[in-house]
Amino acid sequence: MNSGLGNHLASALARTGLLGAALLFSISAQPSATERAIRTVLETQQTAWNRGDVEAFMSGYNDSESTLFVGATITRGYQRVLDNYRRRYPTKEKMGQLTFSDLEVHLLEAQHALVIGKWHLDRPADAGGNAGGIFTLLFKKTTAGWKIIMDHTS
Amino acid sequence: MNSGLGNHLASALARTGLLGAALLFSISAQPSATERAIRTVLETQQTAWNRGDVEAFMSGYNDSESTLFVGATITRGYQRVLDNYRRRYPTKEKMGQLTFSDLEVHLLEAQHALVIGKWHLDRPADAGGNAGGIFTLLFKKTTAGWKIIMDHTS
Repeated sequence: MNSGLGNHLASALARTGLLGAALLFSISAQPSATERAIRTVLETQQTAWNRGDVEAFMSGYNDSESTLFVGATITRGYQRVLDNYRRRYPTKEKMGQLTFSDLEVHLLEAQHALVIGKWHLDRPADAGGNAGGIFTLLFKKTTAGWKIIMDHTS
Repeated sequence: MNSGLGNHLASALARTGLLGAALLFSISAQPSATERAIRTVLETQQTAWNRGDVEAFMSGYNDSESTLFVGATITRGYQRVLDNYRRRYPTKEKMGQLTFSDLEVHLLEAQHALVIGKWHLDRPADAGGNAGGIFTLLFKKTTAGWKIIMDHTS
């Protein structure tokens, strides 16, 4: 009986240990609330772009004069970034279908996070053809939520 | 006499006010200790590069597996970033003369800063010719000083 109880206890402990490990793994594998909030901003941007809504896409950026877009040149300020998107993608056809992939969210400090990812634009040849590249985004936690304060797209 | 003393005081106050304003302006126009430290890292990198010393140039980056270089692809880890520089710029001639310009240092929080700038490489045609572009760097305050943890060069 002692031996039986010992086996039972050992088995129970082993199961608890495995469950504990599984639970710990599950917790650590969960993205943080911050990461989820940032990923939601990017999903919202992608959805907005793909219905041709540049304004809603832009709501992922911080509405500030200091917002920066770094491409071939540096564009400063929310309104100028919006103007550039409008000029470059004047129609739903030119906007094409946008997909973000390989997204990584790196939390820096309480108020800032770095995101690295890839973008791909699926477009007919007569609308400019496919395009794509890599981006790094700096997010800031603002009173309006997590917003992009710097976008370097190449 | 009263009137003379009054004028003297008014004049003294006006001078103090101007001096105060000049002092305040002087203080606010001074870069912070953090900004000076970061600019020194970049100056040290430029000088190291221009004497053909890739290792010393690399000391501007954080010596970590998580250091990121984003170019046409994403390179992860200090050693791999160094290997790429060595492969791409194997000789002092291929390294050419590097100039950083239009540097902006944006302090984010206590431990992180964003730097935006331009790079130009002056090289004879037979060494690859001139090159250049824009970079965004994420700096982190480490125990070894301010170091680049992410470099997006385009």
